[in-house]
Amino acid sequence: MNVASTIARARRHVRLARQNDCTVGLVPTMGALHAGHASLIETARENCVFLAVSIFVNPSQFGPNEDYENYPRPMEKDLELCRQLDVDMVFAPSANEMYPEKNLTWIQVEQLCENLCGASRPTHFRGVTTVCAKLFNIIQPDYAFFGQKDAQQSILIRKMVKDLNMPLEIVVCPTIREKDGLAISSRNKYLTPDQRKDAPLLYQSLQKAQQLIQSGQKDPDKIRREMEAVLKKSAQINIEYLEIVNPDTLEPLEILTGPALIAIAARLGQARLIDNIITNKP
Amino acid sequence: MNVASTIARARRHVRLARQNDCTVGLVPTMGALHAGHASLIETARENCVFLAVSIFVNPSQFGPNEDYENYPRPMEKDLELCRQLDVDMVFAPSANEMYPEKNLTWIQVEQLCENLCGASRPTHFRGVTTVCAKLFNIIQPDYAFFGQKDAQQSILIRKMVKDLNMPLEIVVCPTIREKDGLAISSRNKYLTPDQRKDAPLLYQSLQKAQQLIQSGQKDPDKIRREMEAVLKKSAQINIEYLEIVNPDTLEPLEILTGPALIAIAARLGQARLIDNIITNKP
Repeated sequence: MNVASTIARARRHVRLARQNDCTVGLVPTMGALHAGHASLIETARENCVFLAVSIFVNPSQFGPNEDYENYPRPMEKDLELCRQLDVDMVFAPSANEMYPEKNLTWIQVEQLCENLCGASRPTHFRGVTTVCAKLFNIIQPDYAFFGQKDAQQSILIRKMVKDLNMPLEIVVCPTIREKDGLAISSRNKYLTPDQRKDAPLLYQSLQKAQQLIQSGQKDPDKIRREMEAVLKKSAQINIEYLEIVNPDTLEPLEILTGPALIAIAARLGQARLIDNIITNKP
Repeated sequence: MNVASTIARARRHVRLARQNDCTVGLVPTMGALHAGHASLIETARENCVFLAVSIFVNPSQFGPNEDYENYPRPMEKDLELCRQLDVDMVFAPSANEMYPEKNLTWIQVEQLCENLCGASRPTHFRGVTTVCAKLFNIIQPDYAFFGQKDAQQSILIRKMVKDLNMPLEIVVCPTIREKDGLAISSRNKYLTPDQRKDAPLLYQSLQKAQQLIQSGQKDPDKIRREMEAVLKKSAQINIEYLEIVNPDTLEPLEILTGPALIAIAARLGQARLIDNIITNKP
């Protein structure tokens, strides 16, 4: 496995692969790799001849009071996992390699970046879309793999790729969960044991929504009230948002007649957790 | 010469060229080709094996009261010139092919898009940078060629390419002028014969600035006053701006100690004309 810390080296490895007509896949990550990332890497490994994983904690997607400094960076452990998963190249640049001078260029996906997580993190998504464009331009993959857990992120990136005619395909892979249903996330380690015990209520509220929809409930307000009742079983959970939206436009649904994205963000102590499901039919 | 009106066809032609290891060049235009474009195409022709010219009057870079509807579109004449100049492919998509659904994604180069032409055309440059990114993603050229006449545009595009790690090089070619010095532009045809007679004063004022700088003048205010005196020889010229700025940051210079971009925009009747020079040393 090659580990490239510069853009030039990463490009050289990819160019060699391209000369052999390899299909190139990219799994962009911020490191602190867990079973969710492993699942993305495994899917990518099956579908691409040359597989790159990027590990970069991107400063421009963190707000001023967010956890950029404290975000976990277990590089050796991450590299070991990538080796085990038969990754061909890890691209792990420094912040200075990615932003050698003051960045003035931002890619913004209007409307889609404004609600859900965008409401409390106003510059987060332009940081995400901009750094993804940079990574796509550096690696030039045929496929890039993202997790369904960050639903709004993958919807934004798909729209960016479509609007800007970027020559790659975005593959969204299912959310990986702990046995008790908690969506796996690097930020779960911020949970105290007591908070961890209550954290599965997020997914339980989503399952409740799914059951209601399957039994014919079409009123988003009623579904949300039942979900809130589930979440209120824990006094530690502070709901940031709980939305039932159109999965293409992210606009709130007034009645469920087609696919719906049901998305939650909540704080448990220091941790800000998100989770979601997409229901296909009411 | 191939003429591709769809993205899929354009990509197929480029892919064939790439398989033969051709260097790919792109000259992005809005058509109404003139000697300035011809000079870009000739430079590109000398430097690239496969040469694409795009002809697309991009709606998103026109303001609501600008000349999108009236912008000249002499397609047959343009194609004939491209044939004469030995272009390999013209990419001439419809607006619907380029924007099949509501575009939500914008690339903005902050700061650089705000002054000079950006002051009177607030959404112009995000339209330009966004459509150039689309064209770069469709054609995937090794080199793209732009004219020095649109100085701010080429500075913005270079910064975008650098900030986003786009895998191509921007080549900026000199401004082509009529014998009397008027910078050649598709918008010169909006000039009445009387206005056309006065239009060379723009370049004369730039030459005046150059002379002053060569004789040691370092004070931008003094240079601007002398330039204004030249322009005021015509009562028909309405100056929109006349700026002496750092050619990298576009910030106004307080004293000339290094390279300077001297840029003018002025209205003559229906026509809005721009011109500029870069002086290397005071």
